[in-house]
Amino acid sequence: MPGPRLSLAGTGNVAHELGRAFVANGGHVHQVAGRNPNACAALAAALGAQACTFDAVDAEVVLICVADSAVAEVSSLIPQHLLQAHTSGSVPMDALTPNRRGVFYPLQTFTEGVPAELEDVPLCLEVQDETDRAVLEHLGRILGMQCRSISSEQRKTLHLAAVLACNFSNVLYGLADEVLRSDGMELEMLAPLLQTTVRKAIELGPTDAQTGPARRADTLVLESHIQALHDLPRTAEVYQLLTQYILKHYHG
Amino acid sequence: MPGPRLSLAGTGNVAHELGRAFVANGGHVHQVAGRNPNACAALAAALGAQACTFDAVDAEVVLICVADSAVAEVSSLIPQHLLQAHTSGSVPMDALTPNRRGVFYPLQTFTEGVPAELEDVPLCLEVQDETDRAVLEHLGRILGMQCRSISSEQRKTLHLAAVLACNFSNVLYGLADEVLRSDGMELEMLAPLLQTTVRKAIELGPTDAQTGPARRADTLVLESHIQALHDLPRTAEVYQLLTQYILKHYHG
Repeated sequence: MPGPRLSLAGTGNVAHELGRAFVANGGHVHQVAGRNPNACAALAAALGAQACTFDAVDAEVVLICVADSAVAEVSSLIPQHLLQAHTSGSVPMDALTPNRRGVFYPLQTFTEGVPAELEDVPLCLEVQDETDRAVLEHLGRILGMQCRSISSEQRKTLHLAAVLACNFSNVLYGLADEVLRSDGMELEMLAPLLQTTVRKAIELGPTDAQTGPARRADTLVLESHIQALHDLPRTAEVYQLLTQYILKHYHG
Repeated sequence: MPGPRLSLAGTGNVAHELGRAFVANGGHVHQVAGRNPNACAALAAALGAQACTFDAVDAEVVLICVADSAVAEVSSLIPQHLLQAHTSGSVPMDALTPNRRGVFYPLQTFTEGVPAELEDVPLCLEVQDETDRAVLEHLGRILGMQCRSISSEQRKTLHLAAVLACNFSNVLYGLADEVLRSDGMELEMLAPLLQTTVRKAIELGPTDAQTGPARRADTLVLESHIQALHDLPRTAEVYQLLTQYILKHYHG
């Protein structure tokens, strides 16, 4: 499954991980284009691709994997007759300048040094011209991803939902970590519970999966927790707000 | 590895799942004791055990798997010369009445109809008399669990941390689900992101794992999210509080 002739624009985490995943799945990356010649040469060498500048890109499809704020400018530097797609969750498709434009947004986080799982991960696709969809879907299938048709408006909603569910749950993990460390324990002890919490929310839906003292309206435990958080007023504030939310939701 | 002669007191989710796991791992359950003769007979039959009343329990160790509020009473009904351990996260060990008493608390959630993963899950052990620890550790090893010595005070802290990290993150999943459904999508799309968020928080620690617009102090995105939540004031309130928390934590 060689796929369409693909070039990557950008040398950050997303370019790195997508490139690595294409190569690992038998795909081929033709070029790596970037502003920084050293970073560009390094990633190109790692992927068996050619390093080039943005204006020298020549491929069936270019994935633009750069910072949100740079998407429009990089798009304008790449030859305008090519199919361009960016990989951002929050940039509208119309930030791209050519007629043949699209979005190729993998619903996964990319961290330096942590290989990204892409198999079975949703891939949010958007195209200006429907005839270009097949090329992007082909790339998604090489990666084993689940292609979904998602509009720019829906991507905004997805991003908001991801902030609520992921960025903010990480804040809660940090609050829990602080509480545990104060008593000689560590967040890792909760790892199985955290994974099960995610699994149950997906399988049962969050409403049916809710457990805990607020769900049971167990006021004795709730009061003892508030007392235990006496020296952590910001954590107590979060505790109160989310407890009130659960109490109102389940007990009117 | 037949293990010590074990009886279970209780017929709820915890008794069911622990009993099933002992049998599945080559262990044996001698008796199932309970108040409700039908529930007791059904679970005993499923486990190849004998059904009995609390006063008829006769074993090397009895695991008391009943509601928190019933632990003390059930303990008083079981013969007092036996080693008793309860499986609750929030009940102190001293709610048990015999001299030989302990806690056998698996750090996992138990839901009816969802088989509980126990392998490599932390098992919080506490004993009144150190000579009884080996028996409880033997049971934990049969289940493939990670035995930890955790005091009643530490269990309270663990419970508080679990409420923060699990019960409250489930609330966030619910808020995200509501936002997604309003735009024709569903929480399942975020499943890989949610699992990765857990993994990164454990591997990197929550402080280094934090990402998102508040972490980057990206005020344009933050404002657009608050606007998008105009019709969901309670979600907006949670968004504001957790965003302020991240901004203060990372940007002073």
